[in-house]
Amino acid sequence: MSNSLSQEPEFDSQLLGNVKVVLCQTSHPGNIGAAARAMKTMGLTYLVLVNPKEYPSHEASVRSSGALDVLDSAVVVDTIEEALADCRLIIGTSSRNRALPWPLIEPREMGEIIRQQTDARPVAIVFGRESTGLLNEELQLCHYHVNIPANPEYMSLNLAAAVQLIAYEVRLASKIESSQNVNTEQGYSDAPADDLDKESEQLASFEEVNGLYNHLESTMKQTEFYNPEQPKLLPARIRRVLAKAHLNKGEVNILRGFLSSMDKYIKRQIKGQ
Amino acid sequence: MSNSLSQEPEFDSQLLGNVKVVLCQTSHPGNIGAAARAMKTMGLTYLVLVNPKEYPSHEASVRSSGALDVLDSAVVVDTIEEALADCRLIIGTSSRNRALPWPLIEPREMGEIIRQQTDARPVAIVFGRESTGLLNEELQLCHYHVNIPANPEYMSLNLAAAVQLIAYEVRLASKIESSQNVNTEQGYSDAPADDLDKESEQLASFEEVNGLYNHLESTMKQTEFYNPEQPKLLPARIRRVLAKAHLNKGEVNILRGFLSSMDKYIKRQIKGQ
Repeated sequence: MSNSLSQEPEFDSQLLGNVKVVLCQTSHPGNIGAAARAMKTMGLTYLVLVNPKEYPSHEASVRSSGALDVLDSAVVVDTIEEALADCRLIIGTSSRNRALPWPLIEPREMGEIIRQQTDARPVAIVFGRESTGLLNEELQLCHYHVNIPANPEYMSLNLAAAVQLIAYEVRLASKIESSQNVNTEQGYSDAPADDLDKESEQLASFEEVNGLYNHLESTMKQTEFYNPEQPKLLPARIRRVLAKAHLNKGEVNILRGFLSSMDKYIKRQIKGQ
Repeated sequence: MSNSLSQEPEFDSQLLGNVKVVLCQTSHPGNIGAAARAMKTMGLTYLVLVNPKEYPSHEASVRSSGALDVLDSAVVVDTIEEALADCRLIIGTSSRNRALPWPLIEPREMGEIIRQQTDARPVAIVFGRESTGLLNEELQLCHYHVNIPANPEYMSLNLAAAVQLIAYEVRLASKIESSQNVNTEQGYSDAPADDLDKESEQLASFEEVNGLYNHLESTMKQTEFYNPEQPKLLPARIRRVLAKAHLNKGEVNILRGFLSSMDKYIKRQIKGQ
């Protein structure tokens, strides 16, 4: 666990702008709106509608929930061939078990392929009808079939949910690994506040943590919780807790302040008698 | 890239059965239904509702679209503490920019952590209100915050969509890699010995850690280190230390024993005078 204040990740807008979401013969306009919303949350904006049953539609606008720009710029075409015309990489969403085995990938592999094959853009990702998905003829226009590994006992993923998951993988694939240098470890959400400052969020040095340990040990001796004649594993276990906690400077200070308050309190109580 | 004819992947049902989805104070029952549906498509079934505004509800059932079993077995509780009591790993969904930086992970890392830390189950993944998400106090009960890397210009991911993405990552994490070599988990060097036993090395539950926190807070009040009138970030910072330390049962006992030792020591001293 690194203490690095991770910066906001960056995404390759060129990649995101080159991925077309193609919806074939969608029956319910609400699903078109919900799909537009799902796309936009992941930074996709290029929507193509092949022969939708009802579009434009008020229902679509309502369900898009603010992704109206995606709907407004959506292109409506009559045939899937038109939708795919300029595409260099075509991926069809499909459940498994099609008559003709086809190069089958998972959403994550799809992201990897889109990321790596920069010369294969624009890319189309094609979604079928709510009820029956893509026809075999349509699937056969694709380079790959992508399958969302859903629960085989309950595949009831609606169109917008499928678009959401696929768009999410595209977004992850578009992430620019600039700070890939040292640490791929977890960062912390940024944002200072209150009495927090950068200094106090810095990982504590060995010396600081060790000082805390010594203080703790001395307080534990005083309260007779710790008997140095019979240490058993107590010191080791305390040290392990400190190691696991990856304390920063501020935390060391707080814990030492707390220990000092115990020491003072004990003195006050005993004197007060 | 697998050239298909790959066999149906298998998923670890034990892992999937050990992940609780906790929804806090959901306003719209339809969202509960849609979340149940999203869960079930990914093989998750364990739903806990903290103080939902309206539940049970016809609207929830309709939107669950066949995931009625998930709704029927959902547990409704009054407080988040009840929901988390038996959990050993708690992950809160959050956007960035919280006041106090917290261990922050992406959904994919979350999956990896859940997969690897087999001793940290049951796991809770906590989702906040539709409008305002999780409260800071709720977030501070979590070991990690998970952030869906959405489009910063349009973060309009609805509750069910967020559940869908997170559940998808859990499902991927549960995938059994046929070529999976037994994973050397990041364990501890096996130290047998002394007063260590298996039980005490088990990860502490939320209830146990929370009990330690309450004890600590009461001691801090007693020694006047902590002034509840002016808490500032102290409670949050203490909770974060506890979250980072991933305490086991034995460690919780040791730390509570230490806290108790102060009171006992003072009493003995005063009597002895």
